[in-house]
Amino acid sequence: MSKKINDGCRDLTLRQTARFLKQHDNYIILTHASPDGDTLGSAYALYYALKEIEKRACVICPDVIPEKYGYFVTKTDHVSRGNATVVAVDVADKRLLGGLSEEFGDIVDLNIDHHISNVRFAKNLYLDANAAATAECMYELLALMKVNINDVTAKALYTGIATDTGCFKYSNVTAKTHIITAQLYEYNIDAPEINRLMFDTKSRRLLELERMVLDASEFHFDGKCIILPVTAEMQKKTGCSGTELEGIAVISRSVEGVVAGVTLKQTDDNEFKVSLRTYPPLDASKICKILGGGGHRTASGASVTGSLEEVKKAVLEAVESVMEEAYAGTSAAE
Amino acid sequence: MSKKINDGCRDLTLRQTARFLKQHDNYIILTHASPDGDTLGSAYALYYALKEIEKRACVICPDVIPEKYGYFVTKTDHVSRGNATVVAVDVADKRLLGGLSEEFGDIVDLNIDHHISNVRFAKNLYLDANAAATAECMYELLALMKVNINDVTAKALYTGIATDTGCFKYSNVTAKTHIITAQLYEYNIDAPEINRLMFDTKSRRLLELERMVLDASEFHFDGKCIILPVTAEMQKKTGCSGTELEGIAVISRSVEGVVAGVTLKQTDDNEFKVSLRTYPPLDASKICKILGGGGHRTASGASVTGSLEEVKKAVLEAVESVMEEAYAGTSAAE
Repeated sequence: MSKKINDGCRDLTLRQTARFLKQHDNYIILTHASPDGDTLGSAYALYYALKEIEKRACVICPDVIPEKYGYFVTKTDHVSRGNATVVAVDVADKRLLGGLSEEFGDIVDLNIDHHISNVRFAKNLYLDANAAATAECMYELLALMKVNINDVTAKALYTGIATDTGCFKYSNVTAKTHIITAQLYEYNIDAPEINRLMFDTKSRRLLELERMVLDASEFHFDGKCIILPVTAEMQKKTGCSGTELEGIAVISRSVEGVVAGVTLKQTDDNEFKVSLRTYPPLDASKICKILGGGGHRTASGASVTGSLEEVKKAVLEAVESVMEEAYAGTSAAE
Repeated sequence: MSKKINDGCRDLTLRQTARFLKQHDNYIILTHASPDGDTLGSAYALYYALKEIEKRACVICPDVIPEKYGYFVTKTDHVSRGNATVVAVDVADKRLLGGLSEEFGDIVDLNIDHHISNVRFAKNLYLDANAAATAECMYELLALMKVNINDVTAKALYTGIATDTGCFKYSNVTAKTHIITAQLYEYNIDAPEINRLMFDTKSRRLLELERMVLDASEFHFDGKCIILPVTAEMQKKTGCSGTELEGIAVISRSVEGVVAGVTLKQTDDNEFKVSLRTYPPLDASKICKILGGGGHRTASGASVTGSLEEVKKAVLEAVESVMEEAYAGTSAAE
């Protein structure tokens, strides 16, 4: 079943992947940088499974693991690089290994992933681009290997699936996602508590940032466009940074009637990162192209130089021109 | 299998319920007042199923059906009360029939429900208190009846399950919930769009209300308690009312470190409805009892007379006294 593309990366079937993992003894498991629930859940599920079959394994994450994953993260073995088999999970590109990229980027023996964008940087690859999460692949792999799944392994797998699907909300969910999840419910996973930690816990500083952003928000074009400015001052005052700021983009795409949700995150004295979420008929990538950026139809970005007022003006002009085109000749054009 | 409790309400098995529905020909299907996704989804799924087996059926909802359910709500038959079989779905108590209670409260022939609190007001009752949603029962019923499920029926059932579980987040979800959902994915349900409409669409006026509430919010007891005031003025200015205000209570229970989330909704010149959400070790019902109300360990309420400042003071005193008791002797007591 394995196909061979002449790029030095061998595609493995699930069965071959299972055999590979049984054949070796010392594993270094790598997650991607800015770790999320899927890369961590998949990595630790694999770790626990390898321990069940008496292998040595360690998990290495390029960045600090957020505390909220503490219910399945554990201290792993020490495995020296020399005789280790290196496995990356949920890592589409070696650059996503962040600080570990230089050391490990070119020596990954096996990559287990679900991103269609995987650039095939490892020696062996198990890729299921139809899987909603790498944790979904990992569950199937562990089931095929017939290794014992314990409650913590099940929690790690559930976390991966739940976080990568927005708790079963997104378009990557399939019947299989729900079937696997049903099987994880046979363990003591305490899903409500996991979901509370992952989805319903907001830091006080993020709440404070949201308050500031909402106070500064503006509607334009008859409510079709919302602008949410996240200035350097707001970031400094609240201490919010990095992935925490992603919550703001969620607001931008969830207001009724809005077809262009714009988040303006100040990245320097005179520079803003524009994040744009759109709904049909608006094409976000067209708008961001005007601003010198790019992306997908529904989510795009650009980096724009200028003061907040200048950047706002540039963004609004770009939105307006694409909007005029999109609504041309329709009754919603006014 | 049917047990008989001498209260005039006969418990039916799923098989008996299926037989009951095949035996009659003209149905009036009732939902509960302030309709949600589960009562509506279950009612319309039953309607479409009954149409498949050539029955006449109409759905009657005590209140206006929100527009967002338009993807499965349809115009139903006219069925006159005289010769109709009356079926209530997801209605735990005849009082929940709202404006229809007087006309239909005492003549419900069959009630299909999942609330453990069901007061057994109908002549026949199918109750599965382990089901996450009435729509879960409804799916099993339609499967047993072997009626054709079409895409719209599947959308209605998915809506019921997704909305009553907070999109698979809550503690009522079981393995069966996910198995049934996997089966619904075999139809063209467009779950991501349903979830966007149900969970990720916020009205502009609710966003505006959230902004005002956050501006007026206060933290107390070292961040363990948040107070979110929803004054009459805020409600009037934004036009938000009724179930729309429930979104505010969600904020109150999702801030990190908060164990007592208080929403104060002004209901009259000199009266506030207190909604309290707590986490262990705090018992919400104890706090609300002090305020003359009651409820559950994690969610309780009370109606308190006074100005905003007076009500705040009363609530904070009640929270403080229960907090002192709960943390007595622990290091978190300070």
